[in-house]
Amino acid sequence: MNTPTPSVTDQYDLSDATVAAVRRTLDGRWHALRDEIRDRRDFADLRVDPATDVGSHRAAVWEMLARLADEGHAVHGFPVAVGGRGDIGGSVVSFEMLAYADLSLQVKSGVQWGLFGGAIQALGNAEQHARWLPGVMDLSLPGCFAMTETGHGSDVQSVHTTATYDASSGELVIDTPTESAKKDYIGNAARDGRMAAVFVQLWSAPAGQAPERHGVHAVLVPLRGDDGEVLPGVEIVDDGHKEGLNGVDNGRLAFHGVRVPRENLLDRYGTVAADGTYSSSIESENRRFFTMLGALVRGRVSVSGSAVGAASLAQTIAVRYGEARRQFAAPGSDEEITVLDYLAHQRKLLPGLARTYAMRFAQNELVEMLHDVQTAREAGEDVDEKRQRELESRAAGTKALSTWHATATIQACREACGGQGYLSENRLGQLRADTDVFTTFEGDNTVLLQLVAKGLISGYADDFGHLDTLGTVRFVADQVLDTVAERTSLRQLAERLRAVAPGRDEEDVRDRSWQVKLLDDREEHTLDGLVRRLRPARDKGISPERQFAIFNGAQDHLLRAARAHLDGLVLDAFVRGIDACTDPSARALLGKVCDLYALSLIEEDKGWFLEHGRISATRSKAITAEVNRLCGELRPHARALVDAFGIPEAWIGAPIATGAEQRRQDEARAHAASLA
Amino acid sequence: MNTPTPSVTDQYDLSDATVAAVRRTLDGRWHALRDEIRDRRDFADLRVDPATDVGSHRAAVWEMLARLADEGHAVHGFPVAVGGRGDIGGSVVSFEMLAYADLSLQVKSGVQWGLFGGAIQALGNAEQHARWLPGVMDLSLPGCFAMTETGHGSDVQSVHTTATYDASSGELVIDTPTESAKKDYIGNAARDGRMAAVFVQLWSAPAGQAPERHGVHAVLVPLRGDDGEVLPGVEIVDDGHKEGLNGVDNGRLAFHGVRVPRENLLDRYGTVAADGTYSSSIESENRRFFTMLGALVRGRVSVSGSAVGAASLAQTIAVRYGEARRQFAAPGSDEEITVLDYLAHQRKLLPGLARTYAMRFAQNELVEMLHDVQTAREAGEDVDEKRQRELESRAAGTKALSTWHATATIQACREACGGQGYLSENRLGQLRADTDVFTTFEGDNTVLLQLVAKGLISGYADDFGHLDTLGTVRFVADQVLDTVAERTSLRQLAERLRAVAPGRDEEDVRDRSWQVKLLDDREEHTLDGLVRRLRPARDKGISPERQFAIFNGAQDHLLRAARAHLDGLVLDAFVRGIDACTDPSARALLGKVCDLYALSLIEEDKGWFLEHGRISATRSKAITAEVNRLCGELRPHARALVDAFGIPEAWIGAPIATGAEQRRQDEARAHAASLA
Repeated sequence: MNTPTPSVTDQYDLSDATVAAVRRTLDGRWHALRDEIRDRRDFADLRVDPATDVGSHRAAVWEMLARLADEGHAVHGFPVAVGGRGDIGGSVVSFEMLAYADLSLQVKSGVQWGLFGGAIQALGNAEQHARWLPGVMDLSLPGCFAMTETGHGSDVQSVHTTATYDASSGELVIDTPTESAKKDYIGNAARDGRMAAVFVQLWSAPAGQAPERHGVHAVLVPLRGDDGEVLPGVEIVDDGHKEGLNGVDNGRLAFHGVRVPRENLLDRYGTVAADGTYSSSIESENRRFFTMLGALVRGRVSVSGSAVGAASLAQTIAVRYGEARRQFAAPGSDEEITVLDYLAHQRKLLPGLARTYAMRFAQNELVEMLHDVQTAREAGEDVDEKRQRELESRAAGTKALSTWHATATIQACREACGGQGYLSENRLGQLRADTDVFTTFEGDNTVLLQLVAKGLISGYADDFGHLDTLGTVRFVADQVLDTVAERTSLRQLAERLRAVAPGRDEEDVRDRSWQVKLLDDREEHTLDGLVRRLRPARDKGISPERQFAIFNGAQDHLLRAARAHLDGLVLDAFVRGIDACTDPSARALLGKVCDLYALSLIEEDKGWFLEHGRISATRSKAITAEVNRLCGELRPHARALVDAFGIPEAWIGAPIATGAEQRRQDEARAHAASLA
Repeated sequence: MNTPTPSVTDQYDLSDATVAAVRRTLDGRWHALRDEIRDRRDFADLRVDPATDVGSHRAAVWEMLARLADEGHAVHGFPVAVGGRGDIGGSVVSFEMLAYADLSLQVKSGVQWGLFGGAIQALGNAEQHARWLPGVMDLSLPGCFAMTETGHGSDVQSVHTTATYDASSGELVIDTPTESAKKDYIGNAARDGRMAAVFVQLWSAPAGQAPERHGVHAVLVPLRGDDGEVLPGVEIVDDGHKEGLNGVDNGRLAFHGVRVPRENLLDRYGTVAADGTYSSSIESENRRFFTMLGALVRGRVSVSGSAVGAASLAQTIAVRYGEARRQFAAPGSDEEITVLDYLAHQRKLLPGLARTYAMRFAQNELVEMLHDVQTAREAGEDVDEKRQRELESRAAGTKALSTWHATATIQACREACGGQGYLSENRLGQLRADTDVFTTFEGDNTVLLQLVAKGLISGYADDFGHLDTLGTVRFVADQVLDTVAERTSLRQLAERLRAVAPGRDEEDVRDRSWQVKLLDDREEHTLDGLVRRLRPARDKGISPERQFAIFNGAQDHLLRAARAHLDGLVLDAFVRGIDACTDPSARALLGKVCDLYALSLIEEDKGWFLEHGRISATRSKAITAEVNRLCGELRPHARALVDAFGIPEAWIGAPIATGAEQRRQDEARAHAASLA
């Protein structure tokens, strides 16, 4: 049981070396870059007072972005040929670190370098790289990523903006046919963007023939002239004030007969010859579309990293305050109890903290996979299609889990800090508001989970490209649903763990192999059941309405299957992360955190495990008791656990987390002593 | 199963009369006042652009508050003797309606009329009413409610601010001894307040004796002079920008030897004679404290109403947009599917909508109880102590449930509206940010649930007043834990329902008596288990550390017990609400909504029901299937269900909810037709 009133110094019973070892483990492959950024600059300079009005906030973010550009913050991910470092993983990590500065700045940098620059890099040819990427990096060419339309957010394949080739002038004519087709929520549009990568339906034909549609492509369209004036035919409407991220100038774009040279088509996957003939290395329009989308996967990986960073910062603030604040006198004492000593407070914060650890390990693996796949491709190596699909599925799923986690855990941190948590100076409200949109941008989480589930069902069949995202019925009807592929390696992991520690008590809920097997069983069973439910959609002669009904009726099951799969992946990553750590006390601590993660996950879904006979009622109650016990065991190490996130003191900012409450407590205690 | 693409007009298969009947049922006892407010004014005037800076927002709210005062919005709850209407329930309802305007305005009005005015009304004598309440009502005396201190949020009984009586001058001297003792988050403090009801430890003694402490009392302390200048000895620090409610000028107050006349002590429950002799009608200091707190219960009831109102508005916006927005083509069709036709979207919105209905009925009952108890007391009638405690417990529990519900459901609405939901013009982000603090102000929800649980355990024993809120151990040790009192009337309800419809299939999960019995069993079992766990704390000779450990180890159990009790109360209120409705189609519709509420509640906690053998695995799966089925059945009535909240069209404001998306869809369809 907890000591009722441990003093703050008591918390540190782990040595600095252990904390450093945990931090090194969390930092992962790009640990040196993380340390470089930690040492290089004081992020306290890169924050904007939340009371700032929209105009000044945007201006401040623009200025800070220019400073980052000057410091070379942008170069990590771009090709060496144009002056970059060619370090794709490093670009994601350096982006993620900005979560500790101002999230508007982070997102603005993501728009400029990740999305706009990333589109040119991923979809353009070498000549286009040389022409535009230097200006992207040094910010002389601020740009937008204009994909989403007001009427087509999730369903990007159906965008209505058109680019029609005019062979007589050698130009593409960009048009926004309806209100619904306006590009919306576009970062950098309302104030700073000079150019946009606009996703359009491309129409062209050899001279004399009627133009044909070739599906979605990206075209670079100038928006503003050298003096910032909006160019003729371009219409820009400010999206105005938002719930958060008000330092980013989102806007709506429309194009009315805007002409750009043929050379502005980013044409790595499809090009138009001077005479209007279209050609592509990928014949199927759907396949081409998904290949292009797949090349843009870095955005999702980046958002996921940002969510993990924001969650880490919020928990650093809440745990530090929870260790300083006291409420209600202890029994038989005048001393009040430190709020983090209450089980209810531990329950609010510690399982969420364990999950942040878990998501950190999952994120690290995702970044490594992204880096390896894209680096190989850039080097001209042949990348296995299956590996690419796995990357996309992981990016979708990890992004969904980590952004939902960030929303939930920052909220819990805010509540755990009470009124102080509501004051902007303590950052939690702003973190919540800024990250809220993460669950629906760069892919709506619910849609992303469906992508994951579909990958599981299809076994990444070759005609993956035929999948529309929700109207999956036709796809389902075409597939051989009996094959279920690409499950996590959980089963092998469980067997390996059992082999390593065969003597462990099977009844012990902290037995990792038991935890792993339980999640594995759930994944397998959920997926099998889903396939059974969807199979009737393949029946001959079934009506489209009935197909939709079958799909729609199983939609919640589909989402559960995706989650079950992802939970397994995350636990798997956690276990591998611990394996990579060599410091014995750090390993022991991480093991406990992993237990708390796994058991609170199982507790959360105990209904399913009981319903399907996977655990007994007794075991279920034992799990709840064990989660409580783990909260108590980890409570003395809570401070060490957030210290291991490695957020430099000066970056934390929140007064409640940086001594203000402790000073108040000390003064109050001295005053009480003076009266006695 | 759902029709894939119903047009908007198809949604209205309930007649206007049915919608009106549902609305009348939801409106409850103060339906006429609700209609009066709906007709009287356009709340669109009472909203501030979210992009407004803090200073202008505060100024605008102040001006709108003055307009409300001029219109007599404040008079409802105040005594007839001073020009009020003496309608306590009406004051809560009129406050609640302001949730549809600007939440900063609402909270500011709550500070002025509910908290500041309410403290004078509840704790002051008739002379004090006559002297100050007219100025409170007409806003010539703007004031603060200064209870919370930086170091004492939940534990109000331990506030450190002092008022020491100086018999030589007949004055009370107010002091803030430490930083921790500053009054914090005080609305109206930073800009407008001229006076504050300050909660202090009162010290006095007859002349010549050493002063004695008489516990917490409220004293009216002037803050600013006629020209708005801060008075000598008063220190005011602006709390600055907050996550939300930035139209409310929260601040920190400190007092340094500030002198006020003895007559400024609000002395209904304790007074100081000119010579310094203290007297009170309530001997026990604890009992006096809790009686005073109990008299202030209206604040909690009001916040709870506001949460239900905000949830209703958010759902009105999200359901309307979900009916207009389309994504992904239907199978075998070019028509895209209305997003609310997807099961996943229904799952996001409809169980939450059902819960808002449930909380509305619970809130209506709470307001009635508040009105009846306080009206009787104002009339000098003897109010049963038990009834007063029940009111306090209900207010605490309903506030906790409704504010957590608002946070969760507004968040779900935001996500369901994607990027549009993030734009401030669509109000959801602002609703989220403004209401976020509701879960921790007017009592932290976790602490409130513990109050509820303790009431259940103690059977509202007479020495309830001895309860500190968290350090419950000594209390628990003193109580006879075998008696568990004041459970919901669920058991009787279950029996009554079975008697009315004895023929209903016991296997039918829509059988209300089965649902009710299930919740009743959970409540009883959870409470019995809790009492068993806490009993060892009564053992003779047990150490305080061990007592704390026992209490703390069961804290999650305690919270579960409170929730189980409250869920029962809410279902009970829902059933009574339906009983009060005479329109048959309205009753049928409400019955389905109640099924969705009850079954999604059971589904959420199916782990517990399975763990305790209350449902079988088969039944558990049937419940999930039934929740899906109910989502489908209610989907065509979703619009009717939000229309029944009775939020006038002009108050809704959000463009996505008031035709913008529909116009876009129509234009896009016309354009597509023109191409075909």
